[in-house]
Amino acid sequence: MGEFELIRHYFAAAPCAQAGEGVALGIGDDCALLAVAAGEQLAISTDTLVAGVHFPDDSDPFLLGQRSLAVAASDLAAMGATPIAFTLALTLPTVTADWLQAYARGLNQMAQHCRLSLIGGDTTRGPLSLTVTVFGSVPAGKALTRAGAQPGDLLCVGGALGDAAGALPLVLGERSAEPAIAEPLLARYWSPSPQLALGQSLRGKATAALDISDGLLADCGHIALASKVALQVELDKVPLSAALQAFLDPAQAQKAALAGGDDYILAFTLPAAELPGLLEAGLPITVIGKVLEGQGVTLHDRDGKDITPVTRGYQHFRETP
Amino acid sequence: MGEFELIRHYFAAAPCAQAGEGVALGIGDDCALLAVAAGEQLAISTDTLVAGVHFPDDSDPFLLGQRSLAVAASDLAAMGATPIAFTLALTLPTVTADWLQAYARGLNQMAQHCRLSLIGGDTTRGPLSLTVTVFGSVPAGKALTRAGAQPGDLLCVGGALGDAAGALPLVLGERSAEPAIAEPLLARYWSPSPQLALGQSLRGKATAALDISDGLLADCGHIALASKVALQVELDKVPLSAALQAFLDPAQAQKAALAGGDDYILAFTLPAAELPGLLEAGLPITVIGKVLEGQGVTLHDRDGKDITPVTRGYQHFRETP
Repeated sequence: MGEFELIRHYFAAAPCAQAGEGVALGIGDDCALLAVAAGEQLAISTDTLVAGVHFPDDSDPFLLGQRSLAVAASDLAAMGATPIAFTLALTLPTVTADWLQAYARGLNQMAQHCRLSLIGGDTTRGPLSLTVTVFGSVPAGKALTRAGAQPGDLLCVGGALGDAAGALPLVLGERSAEPAIAEPLLARYWSPSPQLALGQSLRGKATAALDISDGLLADCGHIALASKVALQVELDKVPLSAALQAFLDPAQAQKAALAGGDDYILAFTLPAAELPGLLEAGLPITVIGKVLEGQGVTLHDRDGKDITPVTRGYQHFRETP
Repeated sequence: MGEFELIRHYFAAAPCAQAGEGVALGIGDDCALLAVAAGEQLAISTDTLVAGVHFPDDSDPFLLGQRSLAVAASDLAAMGATPIAFTLALTLPTVTADWLQAYARGLNQMAQHCRLSLIGGDTTRGPLSLTVTVFGSVPAGKALTRAGAQPGDLLCVGGALGDAAGALPLVLGERSAEPAIAEPLLARYWSPSPQLALGQSLRGKATAALDISDGLLADCGHIALASKVALQVELDKVPLSAALQAFLDPAQAQKAALAGGDDYILAFTLPAAELPGLLEAGLPITVIGKVLEGQGVTLHDRDGKDITPVTRGYQHFRETP
């Protein structure tokens, strides 16, 4: 048995490979089989992380295990889907037992957190890269898409923004900070918590949704385009964490929140009448703006003045345009 | 818009991205959505091809487009599944319009051949690698797994074996041959035709099945292990193509057929009573041996003598153990 065959057996024996609900056949055959309940649709998303592009080559494998799954699971949250399973295509230059064990521990931890079962994948030799495909179920017609925002809706987010982008100097070892500041920022970068409960609670309520991965303004642009509406963001309402504000000066913190990706917080539009019920249910929702007729995204100060920056986008770590 | 964003738009406009049956939402949102009919299960398989490991770096992108999808679709054939859709995670070192267009043409051609719709994926910068995840449907409980072969069953394959392994010297440019020999061998390597119709016809009839990707003897070993039976292969019954026999000497041709991977021909076990009906239906089935009580795989000559080779496995192009 070759070492890559051994890895396959290793993952097949991992706790997260124990078939959960909806999994009719797991790892070990030509295909896995999922049972999708009547009236449900299957939501599917694929994300690739490449060493040297999306994370530093020498990244902690445990954290990488968490992050590689969380990033993909966040797309299920954005659709309002209930997680079922995932596949992992792992390409590795060499096989190191320590690396694999730590990676699998991180993967397991996030899989259990998200209730996702590992049902298959592929393990190959080559430059380090990780492709995760996630599967979830959502009642037919109830998935939260990017199209559907209506003029008059509120624009909302599911939590503080910019922490992951703010953490980059810490991730790259360019700066340090006391634990009370560094830990929450690094946690947001390495183990983002997909907002699965929030996404499911927004089914039938939110009119459009996505998870912020390209940066707030760029991602709002995706909703505006798909929904054929204009979105207005009020800068002062964009929530910033205490750690981010302690780590960066105000202008840097704002920039991280507006243009930084990797937070994997949901952004969504909501009829105003839906807000009180969701807040009463204890969901983490902050209103940051509104939906208008028109197109595009604009940023405003508290006096309503348009202060939209020219650059809205975000490039992942070391990815050049 | 960055060049990778452009690629995403390019694939979203590809003919194979036009949503087919079973696709409720295609490319462009956080997730794609599949509608699975009542009583059906979803079959899923993931395959990664890495440049320099599974194919030469300078491979023709059109052929690579065909092969990257065919290899994954073959797993649907092996389960008896009806193809629905696929995702593509494409990692590219640089973006070349010529390369992309040729790759997409090859992908499209195979997608249309297999009736698979492109529903999403990811495009990232990095060393060239291709991860395809395919989705198909199969009536609940009717999927062809590797477990289920019964003593007394016939062991069968869906066509001539060894062509793809035999083609390797041609693929690598180490040998040449006249077109009548080279073309069919190279076609088997670069554009294997997933045996989807055969797989679907075997539902409810074959007791175990897989697609041969590791080599006949190694893959028979997978059936024997999963089904807890012994498989006997009769060497003289293993079908060889005329092109392979013209290109290699008899011993080399046999070795390619027994240990060569990449043919993506189905191997399956069948109660003898099922054979006449399937042959009458015009399906390409060759009986190459039988299922017995016991375990493992043995190879026999026409006199019944055990001639099992020590090495059964197959390493993909340049993959070292």
